[in-house]
Amino acid sequence: MVDVTIWNEFRHEREDDAVAAVYPDGIHATIADALAERADGTKTGHELRTATLDEPEHGLTETVLESTDVLLWWGHEAHDEVADEVVDRVQERVLEGMGLIVLHSGHYSKPFKRLMGTTCSLQYREDGGTERLWVVDPGHPIADGLEGSIELPRTEMYGEPFDVPEPDRLVFNSWFEGGEVFRSGCCYRRGSGRLFYFRPGHETYPIYENEAIRRVLRNAVEWAAPREGAPRTFGERD
Amino acid sequence: MVDVTIWNEFRHEREDDAVAAVYPDGIHATIADALAERADGTKTGHELRTATLDEPEHGLTETVLESTDVLLWWGHEAHDEVADEVVDRVQERVLEGMGLIVLHSGHYSKPFKRLMGTTCSLQYREDGGTERLWVVDPGHPIADGLEGSIELPRTEMYGEPFDVPEPDRLVFNSWFEGGEVFRSGCCYRRGSGRLFYFRPGHETYPIYENEAIRRVLRNAVEWAAPREGAPRTFGERD
Amino acid sequence: MVDVTIWNEFRHEREDDAVAAVYPDGIHATIADALAERADGTKTGHELRTATLDEPEHGLTETVLESTDVLLWWGHEAHDEVADEVVDRVQERVLEGMGLIVLHSGHYSKPFKRLMGTTCSLQYREDGGTERLWVVDPGHPIADGLEGSIELPRTEMYGEPFDVPEPDRLVFNSWFEGGEVFRSGCCYRRGSGRLFYFRPGHETYPIYENEAIRRVLRNAVEWAAPREGAPRTFGERD
Amino acid sequence: MVDVTIWNEFRHEREDDAVAAVYPDGIHATIADALAERADGTKTGHELRTATLDEPEHGLTETVLESTDVLLWWGHEAHDEVADEVVDRVQERVLEGMGLIVLHSGHYSKPFKRLMGTTCSLQYREDGGTERLWVVDPGHPIADGLEGSIELPRTEMYGEPFDVPEPDRLVFNSWFEGGEVFRSGCCYRRGSGRLFYFRPGHETYPIYENEAIRRVLRNAVEWAAPREGAPRTFGERD
Repeated sequence: MVDVTIWNEFRHEREDDAVAAVYPDGIHATIADALAERADGTKTGHELRTATLDEPEHGLTETVLESTDVLLWWGHEAHDEVADEVVDRVQERVLEGMGLIVLHSGHYSKPFKRLMGTTCSLQYREDGGTERLWVVDPGHPIADGLEGSIELPRTEMYGEPFDVPEPDRLVFNSWFEGGEVFRSGCCYRRGSGRLFYFRPGHETYPIYENEAIRRVLRNAVEWAAPREGAPRTFGERD
Repeated sequence: MVDVTIWNEFRHEREDDAVAAVYPDGIHATIADALAERADGTKTGHELRTATLDEPEHGLTETVLESTDVLLWWGHEAHDEVADEVVDRVQERVLEGMGLIVLHSGHYSKPFKRLMGTTCSLQYREDGGTERLWVVDPGHPIADGLEGSIELPRTEMYGEPFDVPEPDRLVFNSWFEGGEVFRSGCCYRRGSGRLFYFRPGHETYPIYENEAIRRVLRNAVEWAAPREGAPRTFGERD
Repeated sequence: MVDVTIWNEFRHEREDDAVAAVYPDGIHATIADALAERADGTKTGHELRTATLDEPEHGLTETVLESTDVLLWWGHEAHDEVADEVVDRVQERVLEGMGLIVLHSGHYSKPFKRLMGTTCSLQYREDGGTERLWVVDPGHPIADGLEGSIELPRTEMYGEPFDVPEPDRLVFNSWFEGGEVFRSGCCYRRGSGRLFYFRPGHETYPIYENEAIRRVLRNAVEWAAPREGAPRTFGERD
Repeated sequence: MVDVTIWNEFRHEREDDAVAAVYPDGIHATIADALAERADGTKTGHELRTATLDEPEHGLTETVLESTDVLLWWGHEAHDEVADEVVDRVQERVLEGMGLIVLHSGHYSKPFKRLMGTTCSLQYREDGGTERLWVVDPGHPIADGLEGSIELPRTEMYGEPFDVPEPDRLVFNSWFEGGEVFRSGCCYRRGSGRLFYFRPGHETYPIYENEAIRRVLRNAVEWAAPREGAPRTFGERD
């Protein structure tokens, strides 16, 4: 059982009918469904909460973060509205061991840029072409239960170069119909925390309804959950 | 529950009284004890087998390896007597997902050198000085339950340079009384398998009786156990 | 100035007219041309030698290897005919600092498998489709002078998974017309030596005539050339 | 020839007589000497500039940074006084390719923390004990010309854990008389830039007068200097 908080900017869904048609209760609600139940109908048993930008402290109070094992992050048009104080808090919790799963346009979110130390820039084209995510690391638990690749019939394209530190482990490598490639599933450790960047997930395509993608999200939550370790002791020694 | 096979050369213990005094039933028996029960007396529940050099096929038949989740390896004076066919088998199983924990002088074993691709050479001095293993990655599950360091009052010294590929993750860094340092806990992935090289463990010092070391061995077995992933499919595509 | 030895199996060119039409003097001769002169006609000044399978000791005597800074390796149908003694020698020299550039089907060569410790397996399809190599690490010297990508109109496809250790640095990521991706430019360090695996280069497509590919080969030779370092001292310490 | 800017906080030297006695013209001046001339008296030919905290824009104007290939950073008591705008500028230039060498207490500097994404915390003890830096990667150019280790008779101790991302390459590993170890020479790539964290260098010990340490600084400048690569192109694609 993992304590999960799903953070969503939750603006597109309230401003744009096309997005609302795909995600009527918000992207966070769809992700929560994906994390609650497996394809075979069994329950995961995770404790699932959601938090959104327009809540006080964006829904990420100290209390919420302290009881969060894994935080998922979806944002796009309002990255700059996220308060630096909340970013500090997220960073601190990740370094202490909280898992962080950054989704799609979250590559430009403040917490991700803060933890990567780079621009996290990339190339893109909103063309609705096909994406195929190849498993390049079949032995990785995030790939559990998948076939060799996942096909998404209509997506926004993200292309290299992707300005992030070399991933500790690359799990997915995407092929796009229009001729591009992208490292679309990247694992990192920062402090005691595990980070996973996962590319799929545009607001106008029902990516998070795709069963293979939902499987990856569930796998990633289990992988990113904190492990017990040794104390992180810093400062002056006698 | 993990299916563990503990491989030991088992020559020193039968040839040298000083070693027999420390490990009367063989190093493998002491390690098996460490893996069977936690410090608080609770059972781990692992399925524990041992195998030694002088058994047919060194005790590592196809049947044994197929049902092994994690293999531990202790060898020293007879590395060359290990048949290449058995090394092939161990390598193949690791790439398929079996965990491998290589102990102390096993740095020069055939399976480790095969999987590393380097000489695995190092510096050493058999001086019985103190070693202190520092946890450099407190968030790693192999460090679970430890304090910031482990002190071993009498050990053989291993010093840098250690001719291995840069570890994916360095967990322990050793300090030696005589003035040397050593990367003494190194994690690798090869194929779908997880490898952990752990330095402590000479035949004439009762290292594997040390409770913190025993804790590391138990942690490493859980860490190295296979995870479910995706199929490893190679060859011609239609 | 770099001392370069270009090793080629040199069988296809002598056995198959279609290959001879593309590489009349052997793949090694074409690569030697690429390394001798830049696109602007200036000379690189490298000392260039070639060596082939059917020469005594495959042309890789101790004398040759001792005076080689960077070895390039192209092989395909006769990997098994390479003597283990020569593989030992190549491995030893790489660990001492010699650069090694492994080309295309050389992924299955003995020296590459020896140094990687994995099967180096992959998926493939000989379909003559288009490949586009994307630069994922624009700051890498192997990418010097390239645009964002290199397009090859007709190639054999190589697809993931590619069973190699996670590269230290991924420089190229390939897109294939048929729907696959491949990590096609992978950097490693083993001992003091630098390794670069570079995918392009089938025997029936004139890949090594492509100017961007020739540029990569020249860049890779400069990158892989030995650097001065500190002594590699192993063994017993006083 | 490399365009080098040596940045120093330059407060201790003006406030504390004990420090002024060791570094009468400031730590930056001593480092500049080390970078100007080799031990054999030959000149390096580098273009050397210095910049300090109390200059306008801390001496790091856009013009200065644009013409800097490698920036060295020494700071300790006034990290917080460095303007975020200057930190932004340093980060941007590193991602574009400028080398950054962070020295000693600079582990807590804003640019280093920004680029690492972690706290960069560690343990320390100001005890004036002996440090021995072991070369763990003898093939690395930063180790060129060194013996197996460097001994510093009196230093401040830094101990693990060191809260940084796993280094791409660990070059030095320090042993301390008081019983600790530390990863004291860590290489990273961020964007197109190369970073090197190098531990030695307290304000009251004449560390930068030590010839082996001066050699490392010169080696590091050459290693960190920008390489030509491919364009870093981001944003919307047609």
